[in-house]
Amino acid sequence: MKNSGKAVVFQGSGKPLMLREFPLPTLKEGEILVQISQCAICISDLHTISGKRESPLPLIPGHEIVGTIKELPSKSKLTDLKGQILQPGDMISWTLNTSCGKCFNCKKEIPQKCKHLIKYGHSPISEEYSLNGGMAEYILLRKGTSIIKLDNHIPAHLYTCINCSLSTVMAAIHAAGKIEGSTALIFGAGMLGTLCSAVLKSQKAEKIIAIDPNLKRLEIIQQFGTSHAIQWRDNLKTEALIRHILTITENHGADLVFEMSGAEMAISTALQTMGIGGKLILCGSVFPSRDISFNPETIVRNLWEIKGIHNYNTRDFLAAEKFLSNNISNFPFSDLFHPGFYSLEETEEAIKTARTKKFHRVVITP
Amino acid sequence: MKNSGKAVVFQGSGKPLMLREFPLPTLKEGEILVQISQCAICISDLHTISGKRESPLPLIPGHEIVGTIKELPSKSKLTDLKGQILQPGDMISWTLNTSCGKCFNCKKEIPQKCKHLIKYGHSPISEEYSLNGGMAEYILLRKGTSIIKLDNHIPAHLYTCINCSLSTVMAAIHAAGKIEGSTALIFGAGMLGTLCSAVLKSQKAEKIIAIDPNLKRLEIIQQFGTSHAIQWRDNLKTEALIRHILTITENHGADLVFEMSGAEMAISTALQTMGIGGKLILCGSVFPSRDISFNPETIVRNLWEIKGIHNYNTRDFLAAEKFLSNNISNFPFSDLFHPGFYSLEETEEAIKTARTKKFHRVVITP
Repeated sequence: MKNSGKAVVFQGSGKPLMLREFPLPTLKEGEILVQISQCAICISDLHTISGKRESPLPLIPGHEIVGTIKELPSKSKLTDLKGQILQPGDMISWTLNTSCGKCFNCKKEIPQKCKHLIKYGHSPISEEYSLNGGMAEYILLRKGTSIIKLDNHIPAHLYTCINCSLSTVMAAIHAAGKIEGSTALIFGAGMLGTLCSAVLKSQKAEKIIAIDPNLKRLEIIQQFGTSHAIQWRDNLKTEALIRHILTITENHGADLVFEMSGAEMAISTALQTMGIGGKLILCGSVFPSRDISFNPETIVRNLWEIKGIHNYNTRDFLAAEKFLSNNISNFPFSDLFHPGFYSLEETEEAIKTARTKKFHRVVITP
Repeated sequence: MKNSGKAVVFQGSGKPLMLREFPLPTLKEGEILVQISQCAICISDLHTISGKRESPLPLIPGHEIVGTIKELPSKSKLTDLKGQILQPGDMISWTLNTSCGKCFNCKKEIPQKCKHLIKYGHSPISEEYSLNGGMAEYILLRKGTSIIKLDNHIPAHLYTCINCSLSTVMAAIHAAGKIEGSTALIFGAGMLGTLCSAVLKSQKAEKIIAIDPNLKRLEIIQQFGTSHAIQWRDNLKTEALIRHILTITENHGADLVFEMSGAEMAISTALQTMGIGGKLILCGSVFPSRDISFNPETIVRNLWEIKGIHNYNTRDFLAAEKFLSNNISNFPFSDLFHPGFYSLEETEEAIKTARTKKFHRVVITP
């Protein structure tokens, strides 16, 4: 058996990525060694590499990963979230964060804010733990990682979204409550917005309106259930956009707004196009932005709800796997991926391709 | 049978209240004539009379009412929300708004925003409908009013809160979700805040912190389950208040914040003392106030929820009646009321007493 594995090391913005060989670790209780088959490049990986997002360095980027179990600790039997016993060779997905299950936030079912959190793809290489990221041949899953065995009949790369964007979408959908018959507005037709549109469609939203500057993305999102695609252009007056949305909603305003772009204009537009009892689910604001002002009386009299979503819990992760497995033939998921896969050696090129935003995801196959 | 009834008529701010005699109406299908036994003066009545709140005039103020059925239409059998048949002599409470049950908002279970809404105590006297308010001997309940038969063993005036403040509190509690084990923060120890404290206590909140400038109210709210009462003083620095709250919450911040004061400082303080996953329920901002600014990234990363509550639906109204009936011996509800009742002729004096804010409610017994 090979006793080392290659991994891409990020040492800081502007510095070249390095390919390094790391020894394979000796497993401790609860740990699993996984051979990575696919790692998709998430926008947050691009933010880390560009320096927009600060991370402790050096690190191995990548967290949207699918892999097969290489080695399990010999003594203990480990199971996935569905109670299935895990074995070498199983294709699995796992939560992008570990959690202790015992701290204040874990007990509140917010494991993503665990006091002892480790984030795959965002944690530094240390003497004890080096294989923490997805752009590598192997990853060491720590104790406290929730796992789901995957269906071998579905192409592995399609599953890369379930432990990040799709689970976050599921958390947003959970926060939204009743979807059936609703009019939903999505800001941003990236991976989050597109998957959100698909889930809304599958849960029988009546109208799904998507707003994005990118025409190609608007074309794709219409394959994922969106009924009304609106191109955001710099010269589009906010008043005209608001009028357009209100017309589509027959002047009732939107029941649900999913803010998945992080754009400031999105939130202020949302606050002018929500109907009575409307819910605004904020997912996109994961980087510093200007404050937004709101009028408390307007929120009260309109019975509005504003809810922030950041990452997800195991309920959402399970829902994501279930949604993808059940809907694999209902939406053209493979269109979200760049058709050619990149090797670890081609990571710089893969990142360049990802930055063009021509495809929602670019995949590395170590 | 007497065929007319006295009522207090409000003609505009600064003008004296008039006592006028109105003929009793002939009932149409679905209408009920009620003899009013008690009408409590709500803060919104004070706002109407002071001119802070604009209403179409002239009107009969008062909506926190309890009464007994005087007359029902002869042909149809009417039932209350629990399906009990209504009969003359029944002591009842009813929703402060009527609703059609068919419009867009009614179908969304937001009957308080019905497109054909009539608000008792806030609707003008017209040729067709004059007896619309509680400061009167009789009130005509329109079709679309939800009714609950009351328990004769409970003093009637204690029930005046269920169709306004207590139902609003129940809507806020519903929005808050899980209460058990939570740390809750209440801004404002008025009627809403005090009843909210009682409901939180009954649902096993672990810590209940109340903030108000009025020492007597803080004393009372501690009889209603509040574990930590904090006096808001003009010279109290926001930083000191925040530190105090964080200490009580063991630096986790509050799980639930109920804003029931309408004070601007309350919302900004709330946004600095909520814990991860915290919910801010806005109820008090029912009059124009300055905008409040918020940072989208902070809401997202903290998984916060901000929810506006205005009035209530029948679910909340039923919950309010149930809570009061089940907890009548658990909290000193009668301490919330001025011990002496006022006659219709003494309405001006009753309003003066209500304005002193020495008691949460002052009751008129027509």
